[in-house]
Amino acid sequence: MNEVIQTFEGWYSLHDFRTINWSSWKYVSPDERAQASEELATFFHDWKLTEDSNLGSSVVYSVIGQKADLVFMHLRETLEELEELKIAFNKTTFAEHTLPAYSYVSVVEVNSNMTKPDVHPLEDPDTLARLKPILPAAKHICFYPMNKRRQGGDNWYMLSMDNRASMMRRREIIGGAYTEQVIQIITGSIGLDDWEWGVTLFADDPLQFKKLVSELRFDEVDARYSDYGDFFVGNRLDAARMETMLKI
Amino acid sequence: MNEVIQTFEGWYSLHDFRTINWSSWKYVSPDERAQASEELATFFHDWKLTEDSNLGSSVVYSVIGQKADLVFMHLRETLEELEELKIAFNKTTFAEHTLPAYSYVSVVEVNSNMTKPDVHPLEDPDTLARLKPILPAAKHICFYPMNKRRQGGDNWYMLSMDNRASMMRRREIIGGAYTEQVIQIITGSIGLDDWEWGVTLFADDPLQFKKLVSELRFDEVDARYSDYGDFFVGNRLDAARMETMLKI
Amino acid sequence: MNEVIQTFEGWYSLHDFRTINWSSWKYVSPDERAQASEELATFFHDWKLTEDSNLGSSVVYSVIGQKADLVFMHLRETLEELEELKIAFNKTTFAEHTLPAYSYVSVVEVNSNMTKPDVHPLEDPDTLARLKPILPAAKHICFYPMNKRRQGGDNWYMLSMDNRASMMRRREIIGGAYTEQVIQIITGSIGLDDWEWGVTLFADDPLQFKKLVSELRFDEVDARYSDYGDFFVGNRLDAARMETMLKI
Amino acid sequence: MNEVIQTFEGWYSLHDFRTINWSSWKYVSPDERAQASEELATFFHDWKLTEDSNLGSSVVYSVIGQKADLVFMHLRETLEELEELKIAFNKTTFAEHTLPAYSYVSVVEVNSNMTKPDVHPLEDPDTLARLKPILPAAKHICFYPMNKRRQGGDNWYMLSMDNRASMMRRREIIGGAYTEQVIQIITGSIGLDDWEWGVTLFADDPLQFKKLVSELRFDEVDARYSDYGDFFVGNRLDAARMETMLKI
Amino acid sequence: MNEVIQTFEGWYSLHDFRTINWSSWKYVSPDERAQASEELATFFHDWKLTEDSNLGSSVVYSVIGQKADLVFMHLRETLEELEELKIAFNKTTFAEHTLPAYSYVSVVEVNSNMTKPDVHPLEDPDTLARLKPILPAAKHICFYPMNKRRQGGDNWYMLSMDNRASMMRRREIIGGAYTEQVIQIITGSIGLDDWEWGVTLFADDPLQFKKLVSELRFDEVDARYSDYGDFFVGNRLDAARMETMLKI
Repeated sequence: MNEVIQTFEGWYSLHDFRTINWSSWKYVSPDERAQASEELATFFHDWKLTEDSNLGSSVVYSVIGQKADLVFMHLRETLEELEELKIAFNKTTFAEHTLPAYSYVSVVEVNSNMTKPDVHPLEDPDTLARLKPILPAAKHICFYPMNKRRQGGDNWYMLSMDNRASMMRRREIIGGAYTEQVIQIITGSIGLDDWEWGVTLFADDPLQFKKLVSELRFDEVDARYSDYGDFFVGNRLDAARMETMLKI
Repeated sequence: MNEVIQTFEGWYSLHDFRTINWSSWKYVSPDERAQASEELATFFHDWKLTEDSNLGSSVVYSVIGQKADLVFMHLRETLEELEELKIAFNKTTFAEHTLPAYSYVSVVEVNSNMTKPDVHPLEDPDTLARLKPILPAAKHICFYPMNKRRQGGDNWYMLSMDNRASMMRRREIIGGAYTEQVIQIITGSIGLDDWEWGVTLFADDPLQFKKLVSELRFDEVDARYSDYGDFFVGNRLDAARMETMLKI
Repeated sequence: MNEVIQTFEGWYSLHDFRTINWSSWKYVSPDERAQASEELATFFHDWKLTEDSNLGSSVVYSVIGQKADLVFMHLRETLEELEELKIAFNKTTFAEHTLPAYSYVSVVEVNSNMTKPDVHPLEDPDTLARLKPILPAAKHICFYPMNKRRQGGDNWYMLSMDNRASMMRRREIIGGAYTEQVIQIITGSIGLDDWEWGVTLFADDPLQFKKLVSELRFDEVDARYSDYGDFFVGNRLDAARMETMLKI
Repeated sequence: MNEVIQTFEGWYSLHDFRTINWSSWKYVSPDERAQASEELATFFHDWKLTEDSNLGSSVVYSVIGQKADLVFMHLRETLEELEELKIAFNKTTFAEHTLPAYSYVSVVEVNSNMTKPDVHPLEDPDTLARLKPILPAAKHICFYPMNKRRQGGDNWYMLSMDNRASMMRRREIIGGAYTEQVIQIITGSIGLDDWEWGVTLFADDPLQFKKLVSELRFDEVDARYSDYGDFFVGNRLDAARMETMLKI
Repeated sequence: MNEVIQTFEGWYSLHDFRTINWSSWKYVSPDERAQASEELATFFHDWKLTEDSNLGSSVVYSVIGQKADLVFMHLRETLEELEELKIAFNKTTFAEHTLPAYSYVSVVEVNSNMTKPDVHPLEDPDTLARLKPILPAAKHICFYPMNKRRQGGDNWYMLSMDNRASMMRRREIIGGAYTEQVIQIITGSIGLDDWEWGVTLFADDPLQFKKLVSELRFDEVDARYSDYGDFFVGNRLDAARMETMLKI
């Protein structure tokens, strides 16, 4: 008996967290700084073109605290494109003044429970839009990876599919109450990275991250069956704000 | 049934722990050292202005042991201001001679259990003062992050709200006995950082940290339902004492 | 009563994950870069010769995300040859511009349950081919180490051999459904490295890694009795694609 | 019902573990080396004066293995003095050639169970001598931090005070059999550092560390209710032996 | 009732794992390289003299994978000699081109269960030879540290001495079947290092490490009551092979 719930997958995702080496960045020559700025501007421009062609989506946020200074989140059709983005960035002048802080590889995932009954998900424009989402221009981002727990009496993977489905429905009601305030993108990473899912939240009011995640934590799915990795919170950067940030 | 206890949030908080790179700091030129001192003095001055305008609060402590040398604790209205403080500091001369040691992002939190029954908390001056607190000039600081436990039979998030509330009331009696000796600021970090809460204690006698935390540990809430991160303890630094500390 | 299931072992295996130091690699002189390229080309050539002589097999993949930039997977007859490969690589010019990221030492393993009843496994060409496999030229690789769990009521090593064998048979049916899409190489590492097994998967469609590993996770062997280390995913590199990748 | 056992506290304690950067130390000029030696000799001299005035105590040991090369253990009246010691050391020439390895902040603790019934502990010279101990000149040191466990059925903090007291009495009989061979200093660190206690043992025969800690481990308090951090073992250094050690 | 099984201790042991900094080693001048070689040759020579005088034993192995490049295992009468060996090595030219990777401090241990009934162990030449063993010239080494478990229902230290002794006897039968293929040296480290025992195995066929450790893992002592640290595997180096390895 196959107990795996069917999922549909869309764009592959790379969360790329970087720390700026300010001590070296402060001392680059004006020429080098100009070149670095131009390279970054070109990236922002290219990412916009990709997005306009509906071939992917990219956003950049400034991370609060010491865990990282920047996070680039990229959605693309293939792992090959994510590799290309990574290598292209690593060859830039600016990248010489950054250090890797954390990264996450996953793929946008929609659960079959969440698709419409009378249309094939991959022919439903709503589902397709969720599988290949244009990332929102929200003021704040929150990212954390998570697992379903497999510990003694609290083993999600030993529950029946019905039991899991009914628990997930209750949980989705909570998330549903926040659709106005928080946009949530679930990416699956079983077989791709160390945790089972990545959760990326977008909101204009960062307090909504706290309210939503707190409410979920009291729901049985999270209370008994979920473990979390690190949480990262950031403020949106567009090309102009990033230039200001990097000005010395 | 929503089991989340209502909370009120005030200022956002950044605990920024730094290690001094003494080997490089010792060899900066007198000019550079003068510039670094001036920058730091300006920060202290600006933070004082912010505090005087009731727009936030900042303190600096010298950390004991090797975990860090300094901790800057900043309270501000928005995450944007915390980002600004971080980036401004990272661009200073002194910052070149420090290394990140640890940081914590959270928001001042007051539990609805702790507010008065007949007035809306956000219209109660006492509650407002607790949500946007001017940090005390105590001689010592103690910071640690913590989680409520979710392990087998010891799962805080599976307890009823009544059960949790009555346990928390007993626990507050313990804390209440220390109000003369220890000022306690609770910041919530679910959805913002890796632990669920940050606890910042201020006292003139550091032994009171040990006495209070020990007593709490024998209370069921801590004994069965709490896990802790690292503990940091420090001595207060004002601009003058910091200058002395950095003198070579 | 000996409860160990009999295994047959083939080639020793080294997974060697490396991070490229782009900041130094970008600034090597054209001469040094030419020398580095030549050395790498010689390695690719030698590895091909080894493979043609059926004395081992080697592949290289570009890793997605920050965990590593490259993984070299080498299969050889002896640990001495794996040591030689490691040291030879460490003495190259290119190696100066890489940092160790992760490594895994193990040996190709075939379980006696999976061999034919009427022929000695080491005289059966099929089993021999599985013990000394030529690594496929698949577009993608997935590697992760794993343990069988020994925790309270979930202790694999306290189960009877019959119980384990019947659970493993069910599990192999799942893996069997993916033979078209995923090539799986199991290497044993009890007594050789920190986890008990290494799992290396090859596929042209990386989504199949997610599908296979997800399905296995709902099977009791994984759900109750397995723990995993880090997951690494990569894109195939041949000599030409590696040269492009390293071009500045 | 307050279940905290009363404790008395004496001097604050800093264990400061350092690794020597031999690669840089080997190449300092004779002048710089002379200055470094003089600074260290002055420290040893000052620490002796402090001890002679009964205002604290300090010892230095050479740590075996790679965890550290040196440990400085300082007892002083206040956290301010421990901060001063740390900063003074960090400003020395020798400190430039060391790296932080580990540190521990705690305070000498005597349990009320271990004080005499008919005299106030702080007026009893024996208890006072234990609260402000002059560290012995034993040939070897052993340091490890520890917690009382709070896991499922093995939760020390949920036991009654009587139960804990009677278990501790049995345990003290074991320690009592080693008073000739091992001097034991318990420092409490709840609210001060990451573990609940630091244990510092002194002996002329290091095998006695193994014998004592092994015997304790079979006692229920340790077997069921204790977790340990890292163990550090070292050989005593006086000023002369330290000079020899640092000679190139 | 003292439940500690009596042990006898012999030579102290230091496992010293090092990583070679190839990027710096490649560029040392011929003079410096010659000096480094001479120093290493002198060490090998001195270690041989120590062994010939039966005052200790030392071996060197080349470690497979990235965890380390070399392991020096030293047995000596005292911790003072182990300290001397460490410091002497750290002052060599070659050491400047190595980085610490891992170390382990312990003491050769023989269990009283394993000694003869009618002769005092310390007067029995067989037991003495096991307490002060000359390390074998086997082609391969395997090292791992381990603990006996103290978790809920699986608490070795809460079992009766009889129960433990009978389990250990069964376990020794397994080890006994490998005496031809694997030489095993158990070193105790309670009170000396982070784990309770170090296990060092020597074999000409490294597959025997896997076979032995696998078989032990299905025995109750390991299945229910043992936890392991990292595993290191290596190939024997004599002075000549080490010189070849270090040749650029």
